[in-house]
Amino acid sequence: MSDIAKTPEPPYYAVIFTNLRTDGDNGYGAMADRMVQLAAEQPGFLGIESVREGIGITVSYWESLEAIKHWKRNAVHLEAQRLGHERWYSTFKVRIAKVERDYGI
Amino acid sequence: MSDIAKTPEPPYYAVIFTNLRTDGDNGYGAMADRMVQLAAEQPGFLGIESVREGIGITVSYWESLEAIKHWKRNAVHLEAQRLGHERWYSTFKVRIAKVERDYGI
Repeated sequence: MSDIAKTPEPPYYAVIFTNLRTDGDNGYGAMADRMVQLAAEQPGFLGIESVREGIGITVSYWESLEAIKHWKRNAVHLEAQRLGHERWYSTFKVRIAKVERDYGI
Repeated sequence: MSDIAKTPEPPYYAVIFTNLRTDGDNGYGAMADRMVQLAAEQPGFLGIESVREGIGITVSYWESLEAIKHWKRNAVHLEAQRLGHERWYSTFKVRIAKVERDYGI
């Protein structure tokens, strides 16, 4: 569980990561926590929202496509991506999107 | 809970709706189910993913900004939006984003 991200005025970018987990933890929980912390330390990071209830949806927000690429190539993150593929996710989808407008209360 | 949406090749649009509920159901559950069904009948609808665990994240996918505008102005949906403001959500954020790229397994 997380809060609603406090993002700046658009435009900015969203990475929408939707996934289904395999059975069992297998080190997932600790790595997921670590990735949230590490993402928050990256240049261009704006916020993250993450919920799981059967499927998981994690949306992270970034200043630019360059910031997203930089985070994708982070060495520790690359290892997490490899284990995600091999071990933790039975299926997933990553969508890179440019946020053009937002509103709320 | 829902499945991972089977969206076509980008570009397409995402509406990322993040929210916190007020206490109690107050008619929310029935309306939420109805809105998912009604959204799926709209022109340009591509899919929806929805999860709640404290915060709720619902991402709906659309062919175009015009399809999103059309759905936002749907009369039954307008009434749901009004009740959402008044009754069901203590806070929410809607982000309109253009999906430029996706990948997955």
